[in-house]
Amino acid sequence: MNTIELKTPYLVFLGDANDLLMAKVAKGVAHWRPEKCLAQYRLAGAKANLGLPEMNPREAAACGAKTFILGLAPVGGTLPEEWLDLLIEAMEAGLDIASGLHMRLNDIPRLVEAAERTGQKLLDVRVPQGKMVCGTGLPRSGKRLLSVGTDCCVGKMFTTLAIHREMEKRGIPATFRATGQTGILIEGNGVPVDAVVSDFISGMVETLTPDNAPEHWDIIEGQGSLLHPAYAGVSLGLLHGAQADVIIVCHEAGRVQMDEMPGFTVPDLQTVIDINLTMGRVTNPNIRLGGIALNTVNLSQEQALAEIARVEKQFGVPVVDPVRTGVASIVDQLEEVCYA
Amino acid sequence: MNTIELKTPYLVFLGDANDLLMAKVAKGVAHWRPEKCLAQYRLAGAKANLGLPEMNPREAAACGAKTFILGLAPVGGTLPEEWLDLLIEAMEAGLDIASGLHMRLNDIPRLVEAAERTGQKLLDVRVPQGKMVCGTGLPRSGKRLLSVGTDCCVGKMFTTLAIHREMEKRGIPATFRATGQTGILIEGNGVPVDAVVSDFISGMVETLTPDNAPEHWDIIEGQGSLLHPAYAGVSLGLLHGAQADVIIVCHEAGRVQMDEMPGFTVPDLQTVIDINLTMGRVTNPNIRLGGIALNTVNLSQEQALAEIARVEKQFGVPVVDPVRTGVASIVDQLEEVCYA
Repeated sequence: MNTIELKTPYLVFLGDANDLLMAKVAKGVAHWRPEKCLAQYRLAGAKANLGLPEMNPREAAACGAKTFILGLAPVGGTLPEEWLDLLIEAMEAGLDIASGLHMRLNDIPRLVEAAERTGQKLLDVRVPQGKMVCGTGLPRSGKRLLSVGTDCCVGKMFTTLAIHREMEKRGIPATFRATGQTGILIEGNGVPVDAVVSDFISGMVETLTPDNAPEHWDIIEGQGSLLHPAYAGVSLGLLHGAQADVIIVCHEAGRVQMDEMPGFTVPDLQTVIDINLTMGRVTNPNIRLGGIALNTVNLSQEQALAEIARVEKQFGVPVVDPVRTGVASIVDQLEEVCYA
Repeated sequence: MNTIELKTPYLVFLGDANDLLMAKVAKGVAHWRPEKCLAQYRLAGAKANLGLPEMNPREAAACGAKTFILGLAPVGGTLPEEWLDLLIEAMEAGLDIASGLHMRLNDIPRLVEAAERTGQKLLDVRVPQGKMVCGTGLPRSGKRLLSVGTDCCVGKMFTTLAIHREMEKRGIPATFRATGQTGILIEGNGVPVDAVVSDFISGMVETLTPDNAPEHWDIIEGQGSLLHPAYAGVSLGLLHGAQADVIIVCHEAGRVQMDEMPGFTVPDLQTVIDINLTMGRVTNPNIRLGGIALNTVNLSQEQALAEIARVEKQFGVPVVDPVRTGVASIVDQLEEVCYA
């Protein structure tokens, strides 16, 4: 596998975070993979709390922890010497360090020296691992679902994690396939597609979602949007490499302006559905729309349910807000179509 | 500028090549930029010949050459010690080395040592240079033309070089913008887009084609195809970053199977035109089709002219084979539309 692999269980580091918004990667790991989280480690003054047992690296290692999860930058941004001391202490205790930060742990000589000395790994999950390969476009066995978006930051990771969890609950064989740093820290493996050299995007996604049993689902985390002026190349390589049988289109209800792209309006759902199906047919002629996930965070309960009903009527597929309604209706329909 | 920059004039190396097919990068440089080619350097037994004066690196440097162009791998693939000796001799004579090979000169300790000692540069043109930036999608001044394809290896670079040359001949202000290793060696600068990390494709293309005078044309070398199962992400990032006013669709007449992609048929022209215009509108709502370049290498003269006439009638835009007919009719129409 040309993917990053983290050993479990984790010691989840909360640093000096004041709240769980600052520690949202840690929160995501604890929320989606509680079984992988042995303990949390907080610095004096931290107010964020995941409700996990408190342990320092030495205690956690003694209880079997394998990886120290560094998902948040310190207040201020750059890693202070005290944090480096902590990371070294964790490696000396026998933990690998997995980081989702922009800065690379492997660029910090003190940490590299300690990793070599202790034999522990420094896993920068934003850095792709293994041999880069080009796409083949050849069909693979098993089923694949990909979340796609009308924009960045609309809930693509959340939607796929929720669908994966719902499938597990029902005993449907399924694997979550992470394509971004938070997803990789949550799942423990994956390919950070936006950091892959552009020639290899689809090839690396093919590697991430290999042949599988016919009834098995790969639930693949989407990135960006095909109609995004900055990141569409990532989304298209991901769509082609995923060879998705089913796409779930993710959209934030009421968002007009694209996230961090002044002057760009969010395209409408129909346009996004059409372009994803058209492009997706290049590597999977049977691609279809399996549902729509609306992020209705800015609507009241009443407004949200009305909007969900309206969109469902318009497109004739299950429409959910994964947070508000859950994703059961999407999975119901996948079961109906596939096991009818 | 976040691009690679080669100093001129060049000493073009032909190695031990038996013919110009083996030395096609060298041939391209000499054909398209004769004014940059001071001399050629051939090893004993080489049969390829560009018709340039013969010089060794020391002679070429004495006559003012600045860069040694290494555009071909030796027979066998890996660089033998004798070639390394030559490259070191060239650096000692005062030449930079520019290489379009897959292997990186900067990974060869003997060469790196010699570069440091002599102060000359080792320019691996397949390696992107400078700070990587994300796209903004913001409009830029000046005009932009991009070649797009129905497949790889259909003539996108040739078409743009020919259009650029035709514009220069007519006194139209224009710059060729190279996006692949051969184009970069020809032009002396550019961005190797397929080697750029996927998050930065469109941003780096924005950097490559900055604001310019309103009447100036950037003639941008295309890559891959939006409907290619392996490389479409590169093509889409390039299209979005280019903000093309005009696309020229390149196609090999009669090609049915995609190049090196068993099982994939070449999409038809109408589909490729439509998808490029649809996607291109994300960053330039006024994008339009400026012509079609047919590679008719496998047709007779009579068949070729008939096919060109047929396609021209079908699409109502100028259709050319850049080799057989030249590209004048495409440039005629650009002049008509823009300066009418």
